[in-house]
Amino acid sequence: MTADNQQERLDPQWVTGFVDGEGCFHISINQHERMSMKWQVLPEFRIVQHSRDEQLLKEIQRFFRAGKVVVNHGNRKELRVRKLSELKRIVKFFEQNRLRTQKSRDFRLFSAVLYLMERHEHLTTAGLKRIANLCWKMNRKVKPRYLESSETPRRKSQ
Amino acid sequence: MTADNQQERLDPQWVTGFVDGEGCFHISINQHERMSMKWQVLPEFRIVQHSRDEQLLKEIQRFFRAGKVVVNHGNRKELRVRKLSELKRIVKFFEQNRLRTQKSRDFRLFSAVLYLMERHEHLTTAGLKRIANLCWKMNRKVKPRYLESSETPRRKSQ
Repeated sequence: MTADNQQERLDPQWVTGFVDGEGCFHISINQHERMSMKWQVLPEFRIVQHSRDEQLLKEIQRFFRAGKVVVNHGNRKELRVRKLSELKRIVKFFEQNRLRTQKSRDFRLFSAVLYLMERHEHLTTAGLKRIANLCWKMNRKVKPRYLESSETPRRKSQ
Repeated sequence: MTADNQQERLDPQWVTGFVDGEGCFHISINQHERMSMKWQVLPEFRIVQHSRDEQLLKEIQRFFRAGKVVVNHGNRKELRVRKLSELKRIVKFFEQNRLRTQKSRDFRLFSAVLYLMERHEHLTTAGLKRIANLCWKMNRKVKPRYLESSETPRRKSQ
């Protein structure tokens, strides 16, 4: 593959297939003393590849006009998108270009969290809990630490 | 995703992107007493996924009209293609739909081995060695056992 070939614009369906395989929609909720809620909601979209495909990650970065290519670990690089405005662009893309793997379920949850964040619900206790419950359903389904913390309002039944 | 949606024909570019992420072109050379050369060249194309995406693997199987979906291990399934006529169809597809990751290098080597096999070169000592050297460049670059065996003609310099 030559550098010239790399400059062709990527096909949206190719990008969708590649993200179905290699993309990750992830949301973490981290303790953060300086935030008004003491917890920070951090949505992230990433694609990790061996560094030999760094150029391709940069192509995808240009395609989405989003994120940056950084070291993941060792000889792995990642395209990492964290800016809300850029994530919204990516969500819009996958609303128009449907993911076909079960990753589409993670995507829908991710998209729902972004919608809540746009409405600033992550800055309310009820909204933060709602977001944490959505996160819990995503990815590896580890219960967010926020839901275990003393700051979480309790319900009689979950 | 409903069962109905799954029945739409997959987009060739989606398939290319997905294979760029998840596909594997692999060739093994195994000892096989009943083969005339005592070694069997076994080219294989596979896509491994969590069993929750088994339906999608079956879609890809229908798309290529190739292979079968079998257990990989544990809760993982794979679409596995081993028939030469079906592999040739897959090679033709990726000649027309270019892979964009460095997997394209593996694909070119795989395609070269298939070409040699079509010409029955795997049934000659020189051809088998040529194939083994191509395999050595692919995937994890483990030196094929065939090249270590006493049956391999030696050269003064490698």
